[in-house]
Amino acid sequence: MTERPHEFALIAELFAPLAAGASGALGLRDDAALLAAPDGYEIVITTDTLVAGVHFLSDTPADRVARKALRVNLSDLAAKGAEARGYLLALSLPGDVSMDWLHGFADGLAADQRMFGVSLYGGDTTATPGPLTLTITAFGFVPKGAMVRRDGARAGDAVFVSGSVGDAALGLALLNGERQTQDEAARDFLTGRHQVPTPRLALGRALRGIAHAALDVSDGLLADAGHIAETSQLRLAIDAARLPLSDAFVRVRGDDSARIAAATGGDDYEIVFTAPAEAAEAVQAAARASGVAVTEIGRVLPGAGVALLDAAGRDIAPEYKGFTHF
Amino acid sequence: MTERPHEFALIAELFAPLAAGASGALGLRDDAALLAAPDGYEIVITTDTLVAGVHFLSDTPADRVARKALRVNLSDLAAKGAEARGYLLALSLPGDVSMDWLHGFADGLAADQRMFGVSLYGGDTTATPGPLTLTITAFGFVPKGAMVRRDGARAGDAVFVSGSVGDAALGLALLNGERQTQDEAARDFLTGRHQVPTPRLALGRALRGIAHAALDVSDGLLADAGHIAETSQLRLAIDAARLPLSDAFVRVRGDDSARIAAATGGDDYEIVFTAPAEAAEAVQAAARASGVAVTEIGRVLPGAGVALLDAAGRDIAPEYKGFTHF
Repeated sequence: MTERPHEFALIAELFAPLAAGASGALGLRDDAALLAAPDGYEIVITTDTLVAGVHFLSDTPADRVARKALRVNLSDLAAKGAEARGYLLALSLPGDVSMDWLHGFADGLAADQRMFGVSLYGGDTTATPGPLTLTITAFGFVPKGAMVRRDGARAGDAVFVSGSVGDAALGLALLNGERQTQDEAARDFLTGRHQVPTPRLALGRALRGIAHAALDVSDGLLADAGHIAETSQLRLAIDAARLPLSDAFVRVRGDDSARIAAATGGDDYEIVFTAPAEAAEAVQAAARASGVAVTEIGRVLPGAGVALLDAAGRDIAPEYKGFTHF
Repeated sequence: MTERPHEFALIAELFAPLAAGASGALGLRDDAALLAAPDGYEIVITTDTLVAGVHFLSDTPADRVARKALRVNLSDLAAKGAEARGYLLALSLPGDVSMDWLHGFADGLAADQRMFGVSLYGGDTTATPGPLTLTITAFGFVPKGAMVRRDGARAGDAVFVSGSVGDAALGLALLNGERQTQDEAARDFLTGRHQVPTPRLALGRALRGIAHAALDVSDGLLADAGHIAETSQLRLAIDAARLPLSDAFVRVRGDDSARIAAATGGDDYEIVFTAPAEAAEAVQAAARASGVAVTEIGRVLPGAGVALLDAAGRDIAPEYKGFTHF
């Protein structure tokens, strides 16, 4: 029943170079890979699936599909403070995928492997009558006990977010025609934020021992802040006026009217985290060292849930509740 | 773009008990899981995808889908000599999947977790407009350097296989109507072999230090023996007359005429391995200790490829070549 066309042998050849430099990958020529954490470290592992037409538009260039699939996983490792090391790739291919597409896909992986210092450790290729579906399982290392969890927020912590929020959702709206702009530079920036997010690996590592709780913004800032609130059994209050918006976002959407959209749009893959208010200097030092802006946007309070507050302290967003992220 | 309906929160609740007993799973309430191998061990990791209508018939009961998805991965760990510990589950669900189906699916996982001593460490649930697709990434532990690889066969080794071969492919033929039988007991056995394979974990562990090379029979005995031949750069000659056939297989298919089918049918998830001819006693002791029959079926020779030999030493099967198993 399992079809293993000759093409899959070609795919294996295409992907084999991606395993170079990872002795535990065994050249992708075995049934399993070997992992060992350095002494004093443990392994952090995460998995995320992308489905064509659900998580990316079906006409997205192959290299961008590959890079997004890898990066959304690396982003989870980043938020946990891990050093990324490698990944497994499960690829379900519809019949109309060409070898050209696959070459582009492998090129995208190769480029990001160089950028982030990771290798392919193994995988599985299957046929599917459905849309292209890819699951990446990525792993990395953290010093034992040093993983930054979701549930570590403390009342009195400040809430921070890296980079800017709302860009990726707006980029998607530009791609699918829900919004238009004549500003080509803004359009390129915003669609790039949707298609090729940037995992904040250096920042995540620098925040070990500083951040009490962290995760990456995939569901939207409020929803993800809600995950911290729920698992930490506290309340996160976000000041709408302090949300970091990119220039491109403001040029296309304006400013004040779009803050709810910025706080609820998904797929930014920034790190939202809490840290003691006294650590604000250390947070900014970590931000500078890793070359990404970090903005203080709110406070952790007793209570539950998240709120997006205007200048008068009123919650301007519908209620967001965190839920487990299985 | 990513839909995260309320149902996914219910799925998280449904799956949370599957993570009990795995501290590194963090209750499935974080973005990542933590793994640490015991001192002196390393982690063996593997991933396999099943697609409805490709790897299992779409009307397969939910608990059997779950168990097969888990077991094909555990089978890879078994062949490598690993002690299975846990898995991550990436589930892409079509819109018509019911909560009843999901309950059955979780029940199947729970039953197999008890049977094989593994826990759920994390995962991802997404929607798909295509068929139900599930990727499991399973991991376990082996003493450092003790993983049984594909490429370790030596000329002069004997070739062995556990259990019986050809059952699963025949079971599938019965399920999809390509073949018929009035023998209900045989039908149940053979369809069960297709739907719920048995990972040979105890045998795999017992073969550490004895087997030179091993993998599990997923593509078919000849194809998988071909993988050992290719990676070990040797030739594997299998005696057709020595292939272990189940009673049920013989009752439905007869004997001699079906040996090529038995040698090429996939999905048996037995272990095919090579070991020194002098180790035949040790192999049989391992088989007894793990409660599964092991049959010597052939020999490793200088050369390349695999052959299925009749009594006169003629190759009766088309040429099978191994290819990498990405």
